[in-house]
Amino acid sequence: MVNQQATLKVIAEQLKISITTVSKALKGYSDVSEKTRKAVIDLAKELQYTPNSFAVNLRTKESKTIGLIIPEVVHHFFSNVINGIIAEAEKNGYLVITLQSNESLELEKKQVDLLINKRVDGIIMSLSNQSNFDSHIKSIINNGIPLVLFDKISKLVNCSKVLIDDQKAAFDAVEHLISKGCKKIAHIRGPINPQNAIDRFLGYKKALEKNNIPFDSKLVYTCTNVTFEEGKQFAKEIIEQHPEVDGIFVITDLVAVGVLAYFNEIQIKVPQQIKIIGFSNWFMSQVITPKLSTVDQPSLEMGEQSFNLLLEEMVHKKNKTAFVPRTVLLKTSVIERDSTQNN
Amino acid sequence: MVNQQATLKVIAEQLKISITTVSKALKGYSDVSEKTRKAVIDLAKELQYTPNSFAVNLRTKESKTIGLIIPEVVHHFFSNVINGIIAEAEKNGYLVITLQSNESLELEKKQVDLLINKRVDGIIMSLSNQSNFDSHIKSIINNGIPLVLFDKISKLVNCSKVLIDDQKAAFDAVEHLISKGCKKIAHIRGPINPQNAIDRFLGYKKALEKNNIPFDSKLVYTCTNVTFEEGKQFAKEIIEQHPEVDGIFVITDLVAVGVLAYFNEIQIKVPQQIKIIGFSNWFMSQVITPKLSTVDQPSLEMGEQSFNLLLEEMVHKKNKTAFVPRTVLLKTSVIERDSTQNN
Repeated sequence: MVNQQATLKVIAEQLKISITTVSKALKGYSDVSEKTRKAVIDLAKELQYTPNSFAVNLRTKESKTIGLIIPEVVHHFFSNVINGIIAEAEKNGYLVITLQSNESLELEKKQVDLLINKRVDGIIMSLSNQSNFDSHIKSIINNGIPLVLFDKISKLVNCSKVLIDDQKAAFDAVEHLISKGCKKIAHIRGPINPQNAIDRFLGYKKALEKNNIPFDSKLVYTCTNVTFEEGKQFAKEIIEQHPEVDGIFVITDLVAVGVLAYFNEIQIKVPQQIKIIGFSNWFMSQVITPKLSTVDQPSLEMGEQSFNLLLEEMVHKKNKTAFVPRTVLLKTSVIERDSTQNN
Repeated sequence: MVNQQATLKVIAEQLKISITTVSKALKGYSDVSEKTRKAVIDLAKELQYTPNSFAVNLRTKESKTIGLIIPEVVHHFFSNVINGIIAEAEKNGYLVITLQSNESLELEKKQVDLLINKRVDGIIMSLSNQSNFDSHIKSIINNGIPLVLFDKISKLVNCSKVLIDDQKAAFDAVEHLISKGCKKIAHIRGPINPQNAIDRFLGYKKALEKNNIPFDSKLVYTCTNVTFEEGKQFAKEIIEQHPEVDGIFVITDLVAVGVLAYFNEIQIKVPQQIKIIGFSNWFMSQVITPKLSTVDQPSLEMGEQSFNLLLEEMVHKKNKTAFVPRTVLLKTSVIERDSTQNN
């Protein structure tokens, strides 16, 4: 049994009064008699009347909806960020449309157009690895839509950003390896474009430099897809090409778990023969053997702060007051587990 | 620099023609001169005019948006389902609003109201563990909104469903333990309400029965929150209260990984002393030690099929043709890994 949705018109027809009177009655205007008001409200309840949100939107020019574009949903870090965003959005009466770019610049562009077309009140994004080009992101700003970038950002876009200090976090991770006695440290880095992969690489380099360890570009391996399988593959290459390596700093835990899996297979002992540190503190890092040392980044908080920064800008826009984009830097910390213990 | 969004009115004012003429020009009506048409289109492009989607919605009564309510975003199974849903939605020109019930019935009810209010074209849901009450779900149907339930469903709601045969899948998992020599099998089950927890429990019971193993209710442990920590806690209780147990069938891999972690800690050997099988085939199950045997369920496909079933119903609704809800059952399979090997 499917009922048609109740409208002001249906209520007006059934009560034989004008649509204007129904509308006034529902809004509690005083020029509607108490009797009529009651009749309208009773019928509205009975018919489960809800105000047509499109009509409301047209009037207020707000959609109370924001868009979120991220590279991947099935990903420990991003799913935690989504969690933070939709929880804060809900508290503040906003709905979140989630889109997944699958690390494709082309798809990301299409999704930006979709959201602009949909007239969302604001957009939160983490860029795809292909995004070395940002005119589609600038078009969000040119359309007057509040924008927050997090994690994978473009330095060239003038909008609010929520980040960790990737360079410092990576520096700390590599200094941790050095403090445990590592002297020949390889780096499995992220793809070429993302700013955070660049910054982590720079942090690695800086830590070597500060500790008088010569940088060797042959010890840097570059992920394309940032997968478990790439971790296994690079572990194999490292051990075959550079058996003297005694420590590896890996761009993210998923890839580091691939490295551990390969070393387990060929019975290379971690941490005795080689020490490993990951990045991001995925849940599985604490349940594998050996437990993986890593860098913790506050993903839930990153989502919450991203929404709150967007909300601030949306409120300014509504009130027609000026808003200056801000960058929020969140704290990270090295989590020491079994994979970097002293011999 | 923030531009105001272009509207038909702005274009009409700048060109000193009527709004109707602008609208006709953009739609290519033949009663507008070629010169005017070109002027309108050029200005629309320059101002980055996009049709106001709320106004379009009001006209077509479609929002091209669907709602998705799930218990948890940070969850291997659910994030895969979301992935399947938003990928299929995007292919078909729909946007997805994602809401997270956090396993709370109260929040779930509020979210259903929100989505009805928003006049989404359809809703996909997996119910919270508290949902033993379904009037809010029936209200979706009463509002004429197409609905698909997946994974955690209510048998009492007459709508389309995408499921696995949980009873059979659990039966297969327990028979796998029996085939490996287990004679005293405990079950760590899901909470009381969800239909899939009930069905997996019934599958466990049936497998014992078929193999002439007496059912003992003391060997059934019931999760409240379905967490890693509960897995550790129940592993401790099982080994202390029933040291004779030689196999455990666990409601989901996350909990099973907790069981393994506890047994690793106190050096009980899996699979030699006790065999474990999980459910859902989480990624981490293949990287822990020992690798966890489990039941694979096609989560991505579950998301894709849920959207496609919803789309079918939305099309029928639009065309005002009858639609009879359907239930789609997806195949599962036992994945044999190290945690259930023969001694």
